[in-house]
Amino acid sequence: MLEQLKEEVFEANLDLPKQGLVKYTWGNASAFDRESGLFVIKPSGVDYKTMKASDMVVVDLDGNVVEGELNPSSDTATHAVLYKRYPELGGIVHTHSTWATVWAQAGLDVPVMGTTHADTFYGAVPCTRFLTQEEIDRGYEAETGRVIIETFEERGLDVFAIPGVLLHGHAPFTWGKDVQSAVVNSVVLEEVAKMNLFARELNRFAPELPDRILDKHYLRKHGGDAYYGQK
Amino acid sequence: MLEQLKEEVFEANLDLPKQGLVKYTWGNASAFDRESGLFVIKPSGVDYKTMKASDMVVVDLDGNVVEGELNPSSDTATHAVLYKRYPELGGIVHTHSTWATVWAQAGLDVPVMGTTHADTFYGAVPCTRFLTQEEIDRGYEAETGRVIIETFEERGLDVFAIPGVLLHGHAPFTWGKDVQSAVVNSVVLEEVAKMNLFARELNRFAPELPDRILDKHYLRKHGGDAYYGQK
Amino acid sequence: MLEQLKEEVFEANLDLPKQGLVKYTWGNASAFDRESGLFVIKPSGVDYKTMKASDMVVVDLDGNVVEGELNPSSDTATHAVLYKRYPELGGIVHTHSTWATVWAQAGLDVPVMGTTHADTFYGAVPCTRFLTQEEIDRGYEAETGRVIIETFEERGLDVFAIPGVLLHGHAPFTWGKDVQSAVVNSVVLEEVAKMNLFARELNRFAPELPDRILDKHYLRKHGGDAYYGQK
Amino acid sequence: MLEQLKEEVFEANLDLPKQGLVKYTWGNASAFDRESGLFVIKPSGVDYKTMKASDMVVVDLDGNVVEGELNPSSDTATHAVLYKRYPELGGIVHTHSTWATVWAQAGLDVPVMGTTHADTFYGAVPCTRFLTQEEIDRGYEAETGRVIIETFEERGLDVFAIPGVLLHGHAPFTWGKDVQSAVVNSVVLEEVAKMNLFARELNRFAPELPDRILDKHYLRKHGGDAYYGQK
Repeated sequence: MLEQLKEEVFEANLDLPKQGLVKYTWGNASAFDRESGLFVIKPSGVDYKTMKASDMVVVDLDGNVVEGELNPSSDTATHAVLYKRYPELGGIVHTHSTWATVWAQAGLDVPVMGTTHADTFYGAVPCTRFLTQEEIDRGYEAETGRVIIETFEERGLDVFAIPGVLLHGHAPFTWGKDVQSAVVNSVVLEEVAKMNLFARELNRFAPELPDRILDKHYLRKHGGDAYYGQK
Repeated sequence: MLEQLKEEVFEANLDLPKQGLVKYTWGNASAFDRESGLFVIKPSGVDYKTMKASDMVVVDLDGNVVEGELNPSSDTATHAVLYKRYPELGGIVHTHSTWATVWAQAGLDVPVMGTTHADTFYGAVPCTRFLTQEEIDRGYEAETGRVIIETFEERGLDVFAIPGVLLHGHAPFTWGKDVQSAVVNSVVLEEVAKMNLFARELNRFAPELPDRILDKHYLRKHGGDAYYGQK
Repeated sequence: MLEQLKEEVFEANLDLPKQGLVKYTWGNASAFDRESGLFVIKPSGVDYKTMKASDMVVVDLDGNVVEGELNPSSDTATHAVLYKRYPELGGIVHTHSTWATVWAQAGLDVPVMGTTHADTFYGAVPCTRFLTQEEIDRGYEAETGRVIIETFEERGLDVFAIPGVLLHGHAPFTWGKDVQSAVVNSVVLEEVAKMNLFARELNRFAPELPDRILDKHYLRKHGGDAYYGQK
Repeated sequence: MLEQLKEEVFEANLDLPKQGLVKYTWGNASAFDRESGLFVIKPSGVDYKTMKASDMVVVDLDGNVVEGELNPSSDTATHAVLYKRYPELGGIVHTHSTWATVWAQAGLDVPVMGTTHADTFYGAVPCTRFLTQEEIDRGYEAETGRVIIETFEERGLDVFAIPGVLLHGHAPFTWGKDVQSAVVNSVVLEEVAKMNLFARELNRFAPELPDRILDKHYLRKHGGDAYYGQK
C-alpha cells in the first residue's frame, strides 16, 4: 500500500545525508496520505546503504503500525501528533543538522536576519521549551509533538508560514506540503542558522531584516501574487 | 540567437553550485552582448539537473523577454539596470553564498585585510543601505540595481576596480568583463568574507592591509604593468 | 592469526579519513580479542592508500608484537594499558579530529548540551590533566593510558557509559564494544564538540541539557528497556 | 632537464587544490636540485586542468628562467631568495589556505597549543612584519623572501625545526626536505591554524602546550631517537 509515497519517503530520507544534514541514521522523514489518514515513515536505525523503499513503514495517526515488518522511527509519535493536528501537512523531516541544532542547544529562536530566511520562513523560527518530567513520563515522543503545537499556538504562529521549529536541547523539525518540501525547508533552516549565527558574531548590533523586506521576499515566492519560478 | 552566450551563461550557472556558492536554484548568472544590447540570463526556479543551455532567456535592457519560453530569473530587473548604467560589464552573478551573505546581514563593508582581497578588489567591498518602502513598491528588483549604483556613485567607487557589492540584509552581487570573471569574483568575495570575519574574531585590532601592499597586489595583476599570469 | 579482526581493524582505520576525522596517517584504530588476550592495531605511519589488512599488527597486553612485520602504531602502549584495565572494551580509536581536538586544546570537558550528545555519552566527556615530566620519562604512551584511567576513576565515571576522553593539549580517544562502535563514537564526539562550541558562542548562558532529558535519550537507546532500532 | 623533479613539482601543485589549500591557481610549489643549483616551479596563472608536468619552469637562484616557455610563478623570486639562503631546503609551497591566512591577516604567530602542532613544528609559527614602501619598490617578491629570513634570524629560529611562516596581511609559506614534505607541512599548518583559533575562542585562558610535551612529540617523530613510522 502507498507504494508511490514509500518511494518518495525513501528518496527523501536518502536526501538527508546527501544534503549534509544527517550522519548515519540520525534523521527521519515521513509523508502523509490525507485520503487514507495514514503516513509513511523510515524504519528505526536501519543503515541507509541497505535500506529499500519497501522497508518504509505505514502508520496510522495514533502511531500504530499498519504495514511493515520493521519498527518505525523512534520519533514516529511526534510525526503522528503533528499530522493529526495539522492534516494539511504533507511531509515532516527531523534531523540533527549542525547549525540548526546549535540554535536549539542555545535555546534561542532563529531571528529573521536576511532574505535567505525570508524567502522560506515568514518570521523567526521558534525554539520550544524543555519537556517536563511529567511529559517525559507520559510519552516523550508524543509530548514532543504537543510542545511543538503549544509553541505555535501560544505565540499565534502559522505552521504553514513558518514551516519549522527547534526543540530546546534537541534539534529541528521542518515540514511542508510534501516530504520533498520538508527536506528543502530543512536545508534552508540549516543554512540560515549558520548565516545568522555568524552575522551576530560579526556585528552584535546587526538589525533584523525590516518587515517591509520580509514581506516582499516571502510574498514574491509564496503570496497570492507570487512571481518566482515558472507558472 | 546568442547561442554562444547561452552556453557561457548556462555553464556559469552550473559553476555556482560546483563552487559551493549556491544551493538548489538560489543564484543567477547573466552575460551581456554589447553589440545587440541584449543579455542572457538563467530562467527562474528551474532545477539545475534538468536545465539546458537552450533554456536561457534573452532579455533587453528594459527587462523585456526577447527570446525564451521560460520566465527569466526574478532578479532580471537588477541585472538590466546594472548593464544599462555600466555597458562595459560583460557578466553579472548573484548568489546567497554563506560568508558574503553573513557580511550583508551584518550590514558591514568587507574591509581589505589581506592580499587575497587585494588581488581582485581594489578597496573594501561596500554594503548598501536597505531599500525603502517606496522603492519596494516602485519595483523591488530594479530599485535594487539603483541602490547598487547609488552606493558606488555616492562613495566615488569604480565598479571595475571593485567588482562586487553586498545588499544589506540580502546577499552579494559580483560582475566582471565576462560571466566567467563574475563567477571568479564571487568565489574570491566568498573566501575573503570568510577570512576577514575570522581574522577580526582572532584579533579585533588587526589593522587593514597597508595601502602600499594593496596597490602592489592589485596592480601586479590588473595595472598597465601587470606581470601576473601568461602574456 | 586473528584474520577476521585484522579485516575489521583495517576497515575501521580506512573509515577514519572517510568520516573526515583523520588526515594522512594521524589516527589509529585497534580491536581486542578477549579469548586470546591479544589486540590488532594499525602499523605506524603507513600510507592508507597502500596499507593492506595483512599489514595490521598483533600485539599482547604488554605492548609486545606477537605477529606482524611492521612497527605498530606509536600509540600502541596507550591501547594496551586500556585493554588491560578494561578487558570488556572491544575497540579503541584515536584521532586528532578538529573539533574534539579544539576542546582538548582548550583543556575543557565537553558538557552535555543536547540530545545528540545524550544519545551516545551519558554525561560530559572528560578532559584529562597534562602528563608530568616524570610520567613522560617513564613512558609517554603507557602513561597516557594511565592518565585516562585515573581521570575516569577519580571522577567515578563509567567508561562504558562515557565511551571517550580528551587528552589535554592532545586529542580524543574513544572506545566501544567493537572497533566499529569506537569509530561511531569518534564521529559523535566530533559532531558534539562542534555543536557545543558554537552553542556556547551563540549563548554563553545556554543551560546544560536537563538530567531528565539526558536520562530519557541515553536510556531509550542504551538502557535495559531500549526501544531504538530493530530487535 | 630535471624531468623527475618536474613530475614531483607538478604533482605537488595538483595536491594543493586536492588538499583544499588552493582555489583556482592561487598557490605555487617548487623543488630545488642542489646539484645543479636550479629549482623547478609552477608557471604563473595556468589552469590546473590543462597544466602538464612539462609546463614546469626551471629557474636559477637569481630567478632567471633557464628552461621553459611559460612565465614562472609571480612569486618565483621569493622561492629563489629562500633556496639561496637555505640550500638544504628541498621544496617550498605557498598557498592562501583559509585558516593560516586568517592568522596572517590577524598579524599573529600561531602558538603551540597542541600535539598536532608539536608533531611537525618545534615552536610557534612566526608571523613577519609588513614590507616597507622601499622594500616594495626594490622588488616585492625578493624582499618577501628577505623578510622571511629576517624573521627567522632576528628571533633565532631554526627553519628546519619550524618549517613555515606567515606573511603579515598575506598568507603562509612552508618548506621541507622535498616538495612533498612542504605540501604536508602546509596541510598541518592549515589544520593547526584552525584548531588553535577555535581553542582560543572556546577558552581565552587555555595555556600553551607545556614544553615537556612539545619536546616529547616533536622528538619522537624528528629527533635522533625518533620512533614514529617504519625504519
